[in-house]
Amino acid sequence: MERLKGFRDVYPDEAERRKKIFHVAERCSEEFSFRKVEFPSLELLDLYRLKSGSDLLNQTFSFIDKGGREVTLTPEATPSVVRMLVARKDIRFPAKWYSFQRYWRYEDPQSGRQREFYQYNADIFGVDSIESDAEIMGLSCYILDSLGLGGKYRLLINDRPLMEMILRSLGVENPLQAFPVLDRIRKIPESELLEALISIGMTQQKADALLSIVGRRYDFGDDPFTSAGIGGSQFDTRFSRIKATWALLKKYTSSSIFLDLSVVRGLGYYTGMVFEAFDSSGSLRSILGGGRYDGLAEIMSGRRVPAVGFGMGDAVLEILLNEHSLLDDPSSGGITVCFTSANIYPYALDACMKLRSMGFRTDIVLSDKSLSAQLKQASSDSAYAVIVGEEEMKKGSLTIRNLKDGIQTVVSILDSEGIKNALK
Amino acid sequence: MERLKGFRDVYPDEAERRKKIFHVAERCSEEFSFRKVEFPSLELLDLYRLKSGSDLLNQTFSFIDKGGREVTLTPEATPSVVRMLVARKDIRFPAKWYSFQRYWRYEDPQSGRQREFYQYNADIFGVDSIESDAEIMGLSCYILDSLGLGGKYRLLINDRPLMEMILRSLGVENPLQAFPVLDRIRKIPESELLEALISIGMTQQKADALLSIVGRRYDFGDDPFTSAGIGGSQFDTRFSRIKATWALLKKYTSSSIFLDLSVVRGLGYYTGMVFEAFDSSGSLRSILGGGRYDGLAEIMSGRRVPAVGFGMGDAVLEILLNEHSLLDDPSSGGITVCFTSANIYPYALDACMKLRSMGFRTDIVLSDKSLSAQLKQASSDSAYAVIVGEEEMKKGSLTIRNLKDGIQTVVSILDSEGIKNALK
Repeated sequence: MERLKGFRDVYPDEAERRKKIFHVAERCSEEFSFRKVEFPSLELLDLYRLKSGSDLLNQTFSFIDKGGREVTLTPEATPSVVRMLVARKDIRFPAKWYSFQRYWRYEDPQSGRQREFYQYNADIFGVDSIESDAEIMGLSCYILDSLGLGGKYRLLINDRPLMEMILRSLGVENPLQAFPVLDRIRKIPESELLEALISIGMTQQKADALLSIVGRRYDFGDDPFTSAGIGGSQFDTRFSRIKATWALLKKYTSSSIFLDLSVVRGLGYYTGMVFEAFDSSGSLRSILGGGRYDGLAEIMSGRRVPAVGFGMGDAVLEILLNEHSLLDDPSSGGITVCFTSANIYPYALDACMKLRSMGFRTDIVLSDKSLSAQLKQASSDSAYAVIVGEEEMKKGSLTIRNLKDGIQTVVSILDSEGIKNALK
Repeated sequence: MERLKGFRDVYPDEAERRKKIFHVAERCSEEFSFRKVEFPSLELLDLYRLKSGSDLLNQTFSFIDKGGREVTLTPEATPSVVRMLVARKDIRFPAKWYSFQRYWRYEDPQSGRQREFYQYNADIFGVDSIESDAEIMGLSCYILDSLGLGGKYRLLINDRPLMEMILRSLGVENPLQAFPVLDRIRKIPESELLEALISIGMTQQKADALLSIVGRRYDFGDDPFTSAGIGGSQFDTRFSRIKATWALLKKYTSSSIFLDLSVVRGLGYYTGMVFEAFDSSGSLRSILGGGRYDGLAEIMSGRRVPAVGFGMGDAVLEILLNEHSLLDDPSSGGITVCFTSANIYPYALDACMKLRSMGFRTDIVLSDKSLSAQLKQASSDSAYAVIVGEEEMKKGSLTIRNLKDGIQTVVSILDSEGIKNALK
């Protein structure tokens, strides 16, 4: 019996290391006053036909269910969240929501990309402002920083309307055609890029000009546009908005933030600011990505609800955290309760339950083993052994042995403070 | 755009109440020294053909994937966990594993039963003992007790080998045929039960005798068997084992535990002790259920690995916890940072990030609103408002207003202790 290709079995050592990702994301969301939501793993395929793009549709695990419905395992969060949002009329705006669930895409598995993965997702609905753009990007940085990745990643920002103005001023009539090309800028050779740009209506000269500004990261004090002949009042307004967002974002993180015109995001529904985070070495796929999508609710329901959000998968994040040794080794702390003979077991169980109820990770040997075999198991699993025999049972005491230094303490089973001190 | 029948959208108030279920189950598992595992949501359908029973197979969300494989959304945990276990030769026994994921069954949705649900699952592998039987049932009670359900549920225990001996002594040649009948004992009229038992070879008299002992709960001091002419040394050995398990189980919980011969569990793979928990009023479906299944690993891999475990869905549990008001209302605590005018926003954001980094749930108004509108939002969302204006910005201070009593405190933004005290 095999597991399916692209799906993971996560064994205890790995699962316990990964817990940190879920815990930190939840804690940060709460500190930012985002509220949790859950939504189905299965949706009507039509939900993704609206705006997700054909690439994504081709990658779905979709099928006809027993009721004859064309359904799919959810490949991304946004359509479900927006469906949920517009299904109720009593949501008070702004609404700040987060979720952390599994998603599925039928792609070729590779490093940082499985067919099943967890994705953290956060969105702010009901407000279109510099402050909310900064808040959502700020949350993404706050999570990475809280995971210990401060200084080890770069946040790259761009803006869809700005890009459309740049592309139009360089002779591209339909800027949407250029986004898929730009999305591949670091993946295909420059000659191919040039060819692709010329094929959508650019001259060689303009394509060169475009690639010269698109292929680089800028600080927010830089102005790569004036010298390239790009400008105008509409352009300046948009560029100012990004710079103002960046200024606020510096309040959230001290990590590097750049303007990067090659960040355009694949999905069709973005309408404003877009962003991605990459590890500083640039060797991994993006850690997270998102942007503003003010049009999706209206397409679904006729009601306009401004929205900005991002998604962050578990796979690249886990690789990066492991590279930097930022996931704790599974606790070798904890206690194993050992007993001298089988008739002591009921008292040993009393001791065990006492320690558990105090919050200690406590194990007890569940089969008939000699004390020395029990102590051997304790040594490999735990930081402490609690040993009980006839003497301890008679007196209602515990012998607590520190397995590192061998020092033993005898305390009463009723003495919670004494037990705590012996286990420090 | 509708969601699918039997699938849930969980909005923030509900999602935040439900967090307790996940947190308590995780904490209890850790205190019991169980280790987390994760496994796929999609498996080959063949995995369930081995031993899950045709009822379950008929309820799967199964389909042919793009690679031509017959796959299914996982309907239960056990086959995946055992597949994972036998896939590695380096697992040290006993292994105590838990998981908490989603499962799917194509059944008619009703109260406490959705087509998509979460299930907590815990297993002990590699040991067949009274102690491990007690440990797994003890964990199930410990979780219910920790959720606040102590005294509000009953644990009902039975034993498959014991039942087989009882059924054989009452003239049933193939006891496995009787289990599906007994499983419906509280759901169908007695006349139908009798008819079904006679159809599998019992006389009217023996069927009456069976129903007279099966339809009741017994304390572990009771002996309903001798008077019914059931006994023998093999029987006594098995009955003693259950009574010894029960005696240990009393160390784990003070909730009610009964012997109930109607608890037989639907799934085919159980080989020993089986158990279920019900709410005391008996009006809901079972809260959790499990048992010993020593044969499944061998069927899958040829290697014998004793196993005992249980599963607990989120749906019945959530209903029960809500009935007893044991899920906290979503925090109306927290802080909203308010500012007197837009030029103060950067300083307000400094205050906000200071409070977040101290672990407080902190919100800030993300659009241009008057101070009074901000304070109105604060009053409905938060326990405290932190107000900053020109004065505060100049001095580097915060005005902290308790929104219940209106009392205000002014503290320096650098004074973490002072901030903590004002927010107590």
